[in-house]
Amino acid sequence: MISDKKIVAIGGGTGLSVLLGGLKESFKNITAIVTVADDGGSSGKLRKDFGMLPPGDIRNCLCALANSDLKEVMNYRFTKGELKGHPFGNLAIAAVNEMSDSFVDAVKKMNHLLDTDGLVIPVTNENVKLCAYLENGDIVWGESNIGKRIGKEKIDHVELRPRKPAAVKEARKKIENADVIIFGPGSLYTSIIPNLLVEGITESIKNSKAIKIYVCNIMTQPGETIDYCAYDHLKAIEKHTYDGIMDYMIANDEGVNDEILKRYESEGAQYVKAEPDLFKNSSTRIILGNLVSDNPELLRHDVDELIRIIKKCIK
Amino acid sequence: MISDKKIVAIGGGTGLSVLLGGLKESFKNITAIVTVADDGGSSGKLRKDFGMLPPGDIRNCLCALANSDLKEVMNYRFTKGELKGHPFGNLAIAAVNEMSDSFVDAVKKMNHLLDTDGLVIPVTNENVKLCAYLENGDIVWGESNIGKRIGKEKIDHVELRPRKPAAVKEARKKIENADVIIFGPGSLYTSIIPNLLVEGITESIKNSKAIKIYVCNIMTQPGETIDYCAYDHLKAIEKHTYDGIMDYMIANDEGVNDEILKRYESEGAQYVKAEPDLFKNSSTRIILGNLVSDNPELLRHDVDELIRIIKKCIK
Repeated sequence: MISDKKIVAIGGGTGLSVLLGGLKESFKNITAIVTVADDGGSSGKLRKDFGMLPPGDIRNCLCALANSDLKEVMNYRFTKGELKGHPFGNLAIAAVNEMSDSFVDAVKKMNHLLDTDGLVIPVTNENVKLCAYLENGDIVWGESNIGKRIGKEKIDHVELRPRKPAAVKEARKKIENADVIIFGPGSLYTSIIPNLLVEGITESIKNSKAIKIYVCNIMTQPGETIDYCAYDHLKAIEKHTYDGIMDYMIANDEGVNDEILKRYESEGAQYVKAEPDLFKNSSTRIILGNLVSDNPELLRHDVDELIRIIKKCIK
Repeated sequence: MISDKKIVAIGGGTGLSVLLGGLKESFKNITAIVTVADDGGSSGKLRKDFGMLPPGDIRNCLCALANSDLKEVMNYRFTKGELKGHPFGNLAIAAVNEMSDSFVDAVKKMNHLLDTDGLVIPVTNENVKLCAYLENGDIVWGESNIGKRIGKEKIDHVELRPRKPAAVKEARKKIENADVIIFGPGSLYTSIIPNLLVEGITESIKNSKAIKIYVCNIMTQPGETIDYCAYDHLKAIEKHTYDGIMDYMIANDEGVNDEILKRYESEGAQYVKAEPDLFKNSSTRIILGNLVSDNPELLRHDVDELIRIIKKCIK
């Protein structure tokens, strides 16, 4: 049965789009609020050439919710000539953006063209950059440089420039009227938290009576969350917002396939330990599940299992 | 009232797409058979980068028949960065082509994505080039060089390389089963005749019981048809096909706005003289009309008037 509960999912990257694909099967009222801090790859090039906001994360979310057959083409990535490296859908968003008054307006049109179930909204219409303040006082500029950096110095916090970009009004409204707000899965400092730094978003979350659920990543990310257990992820979000923001945190309790684990470890990533005991005195309830998908190539959330747990939380 | 007569329109360029836009209002069974000889501009670049057939003419025709809102974006031309000069729709066809087994297959998918009334078909799936043999024996290679050439040497005939590319089967079938075949409007040697040089197309036209109508251009084109009257246009088509191919030829009988005429003349183009007397002994009947649209900027066919005359011919 399709639920009519109002779901808002906040994040960016592949994680959010995988979640949206699952939510689409069970909920008919979905809003995705998506970060626009990305500055690498095709998105980075288009930002430079068109002075536009990055289309990549938006594209992934649009495709996850799309009904139009156009979605099959949206994720095609050119491999030749001067278009090499650009996903076709990024060029589609660039074209519509050039024809529109604003990026927000362009994304609205893309929702229409792709006949999305639900709505994808960029969190802000301002040309934001992300920077990370490390524990040793160093600053790393640019979203794409944060994950790429070498060295084990931990992130103290991240900030946006401009510091307080205005939120898209509709994003705040959707959050305030939501029944459920889901954060992630996705990169903690570069996909989830950048949304929460946009002026008014955290305030709207605090004012919302929605059940708030954080879906923790399965693996840590080099440059971002090395050595973080589940609790450290939650604490980082609270540090950028307020204590007790989450009602639930969903974390993985399953061993990761040895072969995949080795590959991820060779790239500096580790298994995120759930350590549920740390939540004993927390107002956030940790829910454990076997969240790793059967895909032997890529480590992804088992969406069906994730949706099953989310449904249990919001019953 | 919408007629269910089976209409096939053959050509390329802007002329054909303008006609299709008009036909769409009165006929529900339309096929556009489109040349793929273009090698200039964005189409030329994409041919080089992707080894694909030129998307430009196809795109214009698809948009003319499209119902999807996507058509508004298809003709948007990028003005910045490395995408500069590419109409977005050309990139869409390039992406779908890369995901498809053949160009014909890609165009079929584009018809579907754009929800076209009718069908746009490339005339051949082979990577053809056009060359023009001049009366002095010189050869001009490449479609885009034919119109651009300086000097008044007339074209004797044009050829394709490879000489006899296979026609797309569906194109031949549509021609053979048509009630009406309309040629042009469009560039005589670079948009209309290249279709007729594809192996089997002229044979199918000859075998078809359709009423055949040639819509003559209003102005001559430098490098192509300088000094041509309406009859010269017809003779050029007959030279490349067979005598008596056309049942009707529709030509303009109206004076062209002086200001526009001056501008066109400064670019080497003239008013095409109808000279109906030349048709006295011809099996082709010339129909005259006031065919110039009211647009003060661009010289285009008055589509409503053109469709009215076409309807009279096929009654």
